[in-house]
Amino acid sequence: MIRQFPEPSSDKAEQEGAGPLAPAFDANGLVTAVVTDSADGELLMVAHMDAEALALTIDTGIAHYYSRSRRKIWKKGETSGNLQTVHEIRTDCDQDAIWLKVSVAGHDATCHTGRRSCFYRIVEKQGDEGVLRIVDDHRHFDPAQVYKPDGTK
Amino acid sequence: MIRQFPEPSSDKAEQEGAGPLAPAFDANGLVTAVVTDSADGELLMVAHMDAEALALTIDTGIAHYYSRSRRKIWKKGETSGNLQTVHEIRTDCDQDAIWLKVSVAGHDATCHTGRRSCFYRIVEKQGDEGVLRIVDDHRHFDPAQVYKPDGTK
Repeated sequence: MIRQFPEPSSDKAEQEGAGPLAPAFDANGLVTAVVTDSADGELLMVAHMDAEALALTIDTGIAHYYSRSRRKIWKKGETSGNLQTVHEIRTDCDQDAIWLKVSVAGHDATCHTGRRSCFYRIVEKQGDEGVLRIVDDHRHFDPAQVYKPDGTK
Repeated sequence: MIRQFPEPSSDKAEQEGAGPLAPAFDANGLVTAVVTDSADGELLMVAHMDAEALALTIDTGIAHYYSRSRRKIWKKGETSGNLQTVHEIRTDCDQDAIWLKVSVAGHDATCHTGRRSCFYRIVEKQGDEGVLRIVDDHRHFDPAQVYKPDGTK
């Protein structure tokens, strides 16, 4: 069981090399987590992890995040059943971002809106504005049936 | 030219729907940017954008970020020549993350270490520790030749 992570190295080459995972948590104690589907590489979501969430993810092989809105550990899919099994974990050069390649259980949906991915809208430029167009409106589940009225996800 | 973005809607359904791009910038005025290769979907990097960087990206079709370390706008590839041409922009359900699908000019490398992707290391569990293993060590350019001694990227 991972109890704590070492401090990031002040030696840039060391932080960028092989060796111990030494996440560079930000001022709020978080790293960014990027989540893709291990089958086809589709980007499913972006979230955040504190040290506990990252340790739990590595230890259990099930994705855990830190919910900034609810201010607590968030085992993704605990309510909806759409748990994420982690097949590979990577980190980036300065170790302030984590990439999870996952497979999604349950409805095979990651977004709380019921869609497969949270990135279901394209940004288009119309004159001097950015406008959003929905490119995936297929709902794998009905959020009203799955979540409680407080909209927790 | 995009001059400013509207405030995020307090109406959750509105913020998650079609309509104006209304990025939910964090307390530091930033959104997370996830960057993938438009050709094969490979995750290349994670960075941050302020309103100016996001507007410049939409307006010019070339990726701009906000460098937290240098505290200024960062036209990715300005030094190395590895400019990113943006083929598609998406946002996520709450609009606090942006997904860019890009093609990379120059050396076809995104990481300042000379590698194609910043995510060149896998996290493995060894006993009670996370250990990093390098899975891509191919350098597309020599950082010492491309960057100045201060290591700017």
